[in-house]
Amino acid sequence: MPDRYDSELLRNLSNVLFRKIGYSAEESNLISDVITSADLYGISSHGFQRLALYVDGVTKIGRIKIHKKPKIISETPSSAVIDGNETSGQVASMLATNMAIGKAKEKGVGIVVVKNSNHFGIAGYYTRHIMNNDLLGIAMTNTEAIMVPTNGKKPMLGTNPISIAMKATPYPYVFDASTSVVTRGKLEVHAKEGKDIPLSWAVGSDGNTSGDVRTILQGITNKEFGGILPLGGMDEVHGSHKGYGLGLAVELFTGILSGGITSNYVREHFNSDRCSHMFMAIDYGMFGDKHAIENSFSQYLDEIRNSAVSSPELEILTHGQKELREFNQNVRRGIKLDKKTITEIERLCEEFALESKEFLSRVG
Amino acid sequence: MPDRYDSELLRNLSNVLFRKIGYSAEESNLISDVITSADLYGISSHGFQRLALYVDGVTKIGRIKIHKKPKIISETPSSAVIDGNETSGQVASMLATNMAIGKAKEKGVGIVVVKNSNHFGIAGYYTRHIMNNDLLGIAMTNTEAIMVPTNGKKPMLGTNPISIAMKATPYPYVFDASTSVVTRGKLEVHAKEGKDIPLSWAVGSDGNTSGDVRTILQGITNKEFGGILPLGGMDEVHGSHKGYGLGLAVELFTGILSGGITSNYVREHFNSDRCSHMFMAIDYGMFGDKHAIENSFSQYLDEIRNSAVSSPELEILTHGQKELREFNQNVRRGIKLDKKTITEIERLCEEFALESKEFLSRVG
Repeated sequence: MPDRYDSELLRNLSNVLFRKIGYSAEESNLISDVITSADLYGISSHGFQRLALYVDGVTKIGRIKIHKKPKIISETPSSAVIDGNETSGQVASMLATNMAIGKAKEKGVGIVVVKNSNHFGIAGYYTRHIMNNDLLGIAMTNTEAIMVPTNGKKPMLGTNPISIAMKATPYPYVFDASTSVVTRGKLEVHAKEGKDIPLSWAVGSDGNTSGDVRTILQGITNKEFGGILPLGGMDEVHGSHKGYGLGLAVELFTGILSGGITSNYVREHFNSDRCSHMFMAIDYGMFGDKHAIENSFSQYLDEIRNSAVSSPELEILTHGQKELREFNQNVRRGIKLDKKTITEIERLCEEFALESKEFLSRVG
Repeated sequence: MPDRYDSELLRNLSNVLFRKIGYSAEESNLISDVITSADLYGISSHGFQRLALYVDGVTKIGRIKIHKKPKIISETPSSAVIDGNETSGQVASMLATNMAIGKAKEKGVGIVVVKNSNHFGIAGYYTRHIMNNDLLGIAMTNTEAIMVPTNGKKPMLGTNPISIAMKATPYPYVFDASTSVVTRGKLEVHAKEGKDIPLSWAVGSDGNTSGDVRTILQGITNKEFGGILPLGGMDEVHGSHKGYGLGLAVELFTGILSGGITSNYVREHFNSDRCSHMFMAIDYGMFGDKHAIENSFSQYLDEIRNSAVSSPELEILTHGQKELREFNQNVRRGIKLDKKTITEIERLCEEFALESKEFLSRVG
């Protein structure tokens, strides 16, 4: 079991590092909050294990162009297009999210798309922000191509997550999931543990399903054949075409509507992701009394959670419930860091002449 | 193999029947077009096999209240709420779709929700209509509860389809799929053929996966435990929580936002479905030149179709391609009707003193 560390000290470290490499205080706070939130919600794949990637992305790889700023290239009362200008995905995304919120409050709906961006962290960060403004939030992003279309063996789509968030008590509804059967992170965890993956997760370079996760990951990295399957798996019998079609919808709403590029070109020709995002905010007060709508949704989610379980040891959850539980526990008990992440944090501290011990405080 | 029949004569029959039971010419044309289109697109589960259901729904069951009209109960420049008033789902839905189109043309986005409605046919009918108005279309509906939540055995959600349509050449993108692993129709086909279903499709009354399709269908009809699984199947390993979460999003956008009821109450207390729908139209001209957007989408879809197949006998399709092929073939070669549907058509003709031979013309 990995040790747990104080989240607020890690947040401080992240803040200090981002300030040192040239981000403003506001930008550093934002990026650090996206990272820390991911770990607090239990989504460690998008937490501090990515810190080095974001820092090196600026200082070493040059993928994130810190001297550039996102630019609004067109705008209507209910929409905008932002050029991320190869800067931080979080900075461009928060600008877009806040614009979508403003437009929804004015006009009922706001849709803002971003092109030429970089990795934005967890999609649920932005939909939660919309939700906390009493609006219904939707966020999507395309990513490096890693998912094959149904009947294909070349990755032509990203894992293309969709997040939807809406107020409810006691647990808000926060859906945040890739349209592929699993994410790359899940494959990496299996590879790290030396385990095979289920046959329904990916195809190898020959187009057959394969459990050999190391070979599949290598193929993906080398832009060869083979990749992760859509939600629904290998064939239409299990709905593969549905996951694939939803992934396609994400490409339409992000890379296509923004005038950006689709996942099969992300990280292909440029030294930046150039991925695209979409943020939508809806003022559900257009449809009726907001509290009445929230209450009827809360009641329905409650009915589902209390409905008959398929097996006594199981629990029926609604989306966002597990993350809220994790959050409430992790602010107290700290967040899990694996050995590799700790080594990276120590390396970063050394590079920037910081005392890693000041930021790595074991909890419990 | 079922025989094929002339679609235009069947459309005429449908029109005559709907006029006879009291629909206006415009309403009859619409409902007949939704039914005929489904068969022409190859979606026979929503075609003439439902004709008797729609007619009896008015004349015998009384589920569809033909003397009532859908009523706009609130409206803003970019939204509306319609009370379907237990009338025909197609009539209420077309009113809603046209309002969404008008609002999108004025304001960029139009979202119209409908409550207290009945079965609206194929979701793709409405999104295609939005698409044919040069807008991006989204449609959703909740349905009678038939899908269990992940870890549950009581159906708490409908099959809850999502349709998304967007212009592209040579094949428009028309996604239209349930958020469950399969639809009830697929189960009925297996039952009819006396075949078991794959274990990943449904759970029985004991909460275990089951291939015994007759028992499962009986359980669903009797509102007992057991139901269809979400897209992603039985467990989180294959993404069950994702299909379940998307199904929940459909409930939010339909039953909740409209102030209607969720799938677990549809057909429960009332002699009408009282299901809810949502229609969204987006003027993508807000984001850039419409032709440029359509062209870049067409190019991407083309790249996917031409990418490497996983096995030489397979073909990579994009969504809407198969339906367009079917349509172009079926207008000439006729549409398939099974024995049960023909018997029902003959029965309806007898009831309304029509010559069934005049409408049932075998093609080829």
